Amino acid sequence: MSKQAQPSYPIHELLAKRWSPYWYDERPVKAEDLRSIFEAARWAASSYNEQPWRFIVATKDQPEQYAKVLSVLVEANQAWAQRAPVLVLGVIGRNFERNGKPNKAAEHDLGLAAASLTLEATARGLHVHQMIGLDPEKGRSVFGVPAGFEVLTALAIGYAADPAQAPEALRGRDTAPRGRKPLSEIVFGGTWGQVSSAVK
Amino acid sequence: MSKQAQPSYPIHELLAKRWSPYWYDERPVKAEDLRSIFEAARWAASSYNEQPWRFIVATKDQPEQYAKVLSVLVEANQAWAQRAPVLVLGVIGRNFERNGKPNKAAEHDLGLAAASLTLEATARGLHVHQMIGLDPEKGRSVFGVPAGFEVLTALAIGYAADPAQAPEALRGRDTAPRGRKPLSEIVFGGTWGQVSSAVK
Repeated sequence: MSKQAQPSYPIHELLAKRWSPYWYDERPVKAEDLRSIFEAARWAASSYNEQPWRFIVATKDQPEQYAKVLSVLVEANQAWAQRAPVLVLGVIGRNFERNGKPNKAAEHDLGLAAASLTLEATARGLHVHQMIGLDPEKGRSVFGVPAGFEVLTALAIGYAADPAQAPEALRGRDTAPRGRKPLSEIVFGGTWGQVSSAVK
Repeated sequence: MSKQAQPSYPIHELLAKRWSPYWYDERPVKAEDLRSIFEAARWAASSYNEQPWRFIVATKDQPEQYAKVLSVLVEANQAWAQRAPVLVLGVIGRNFERNGKPNKAAEHDLGLAAASLTLEATARGLHVHQMIGLDPEKGRSVFGVPAGFEVLTALAIGYAADPAQAPEALRGRDTAPRGRKPLSEIVFGGTWGQVSSAVK
């Protein structure tokens, strides 16, 4: 079983290796790995260097904090994510600190930081599975997230386990081949829908 | 001059090397590099594997297409971005293809794809500078972007040039030291504003 991407053109091995497991090993994540994962997020690019991302982290050896993060996820995500040794909420600041104006890039820039975090995790043999299925208002009340900030995503971080040991519903997800739209459907040139010469 | 990040904890060298120049060399980007850059974006994660990202690409050897992309940027970005050999618009699909419902992750997931693209570019000695300063409605009319899609970002791609040759206003930006909030301000545990033990 390999979830390695099958790219049409060569890409960096860490990008090809990355995938989002449902079935995690319960082995904890080393403290030094976790620090470097968040350090990687920290150095992401952002509009006006606003760094609109915040993270709320819980590890399984903090059962009360872990349960709080888990409670913010929708039930379907709780079902599998509770195996992961680390759960994280991804939070955005909606407005620029310097002038209070709306930051149109906030969600996008959390994505940039999350991808950096994921790359660092992948380089350390870890996996990250991101979720949008959660209750932002529950996150706000459980953690006291202030106005102007919003819980947008959750991330399960840990080591992928052998899906042969997983319940059938999850096993299928973790062994299914990976697929993507062809480049001709996502990279245009000149006008919408016209395949860019860059990818022909 | 080095814009290498100064991380507090070790991070992958491609993440530390990445930065967003204002002053580009006019050397073109090789066709094979450009293909791999978009291939990297293609394999990013997304909610329900929706892949809400689309890209509109123009290279400088296509002057008409390049001018069209450039025209979508705000003037302050046009001023420096017009040196880059490749300009790209980042577009999101607002709704899921399979049921037409709003995709709350669309902007975030374009960020994931853009970060993958940027990592691939960095691995190939290239740089990417992302922008949110553009006119989405102009992008829609210039390229015929259909309802349900929206131009969100632009990306200048190329080789960073020696800032000593840049006009003074840009030189300062490309030589200024890089800074980020400390981890203690962005990674919380237990409750909002309390530094996570993971980064202490």
